[in-house]
Amino acid sequence: MPKGMPEAGTIPDDGLTTRERRNLPVLAVHTGPGKGKSTAAFGMALRAWNQGFSVGVFQFVKSAKWRVGEEAALRALGDVHQTTGQGGPVEWHKMGEGWSWIRKHGDEIDHASAAQEGWREIQRRLGAETHRFYVLDEFTYPLKWGWIDTAEVVSTLHDRPGKQHVIITGRDAPQELIDAADLVTEMTKIKHPMDAGRKGQRGIEW
Amino acid sequence: MPKGMPEAGTIPDDGLTTRERRNLPVLAVHTGPGKGKSTAAFGMALRAWNQGFSVGVFQFVKSAKWRVGEEAALRALGDVHQTTGQGGPVEWHKMGEGWSWIRKHGDEIDHASAAQEGWREIQRRLGAETHRFYVLDEFTYPLKWGWIDTAEVVSTLHDRPGKQHVIITGRDAPQELIDAADLVTEMTKIKHPMDAGRKGQRGIEW
Repeated sequence: MPKGMPEAGTIPDDGLTTRERRNLPVLAVHTGPGKGKSTAAFGMALRAWNQGFSVGVFQFVKSAKWRVGEEAALRALGDVHQTTGQGGPVEWHKMGEGWSWIRKHGDEIDHASAAQEGWREIQRRLGAETHRFYVLDEFTYPLKWGWIDTAEVVSTLHDRPGKQHVIITGRDAPQELIDAADLVTEMTKIKHPMDAGRKGQRGIEW
Repeated sequence: MPKGMPEAGTIPDDGLTTRERRNLPVLAVHTGPGKGKSTAAFGMALRAWNQGFSVGVFQFVKSAKWRVGEEAALRALGDVHQTTGQGGPVEWHKMGEGWSWIRKHGDEIDHASAAQEGWREIQRRLGAETHRFYVLDEFTYPLKWGWIDTAEVVSTLHDRPGKQHVIITGRDAPQELIDAADLVTEMTKIKHPMDAGRKGQRGIEW
């Protein structure tokens, strides 16, 4: 519903006007074992792009091959913005091939350190209000594995300045993150083609 | 997972090779009361676009204002295809402002007839293999309300030629449709900002 009304009796006693409340930045979490967590986040990015928001995607996954379709499409939309002014700019950063802002070096960085460095950069960008819309894709895993401190993430997100929307995806989101989020959706698998022995296929899985 | 392996013991005795099974067309249903059903379908459309598939979106909603962000972004990707050849073509059709292939006329068409006419056109396109990737957005509602016959939909989809992928979204998907689908995901609302008295906002809800 594009302009839903809150249910009667649910308007909080927070001293904010409806307008102020409407413009609060959103922290959304897409979790659960089903498909569509990241896909829905990239679908949301289409709306953000169309509003002219600066979109920043940070993929906390090992393989640089994941989400190639979404990446190509969102990068194409970033190019549309650059050439025609329509929509907003798009940045896409991947841990899998080494974060783009880190100079390449001979020693391979371990995943825990790479994840931490990704989070540091996101903290810097949130502080500088670099983007209006962030996708932290598969970000629940470094939290779950203890590579990044969940309490610090929650605190940084709570104190972020301005109107920066943040969407976090991944299974097993920590309860503290769910408690801190405004919008939490759980994707549940009812049926999957791989259960019937099918393998992933292009245009559907990637 | 881009190239997941089916679990051991789940390979069906259907006489198909893995390659044949991989290339089977997918019927996916996104249902449940949570957010992200349509958004995830449009995220999937990004992957289809990147594979060069012809994407056809059919919105079975009353208001033509819904999904304006997704529509603008996917139309922009269709334009990218037309001008550069990257990705695939995109068509976007809305019931809310009258299906584009129906000549405008003075008498307003009722919603049940409009939904039926939308389905007839989708049948024609499936028969002609017009698209490789279809989004039938909010299509569960005309099924639920009896405007379109679910058994006919299941039969048409079962018999569709070629490798046409179809994604159907909406709450309360009929059981026959779920039974016929290859991939079913249920989106469950855990927490929503409107519960805390917030209204929808641009860049997030539209």
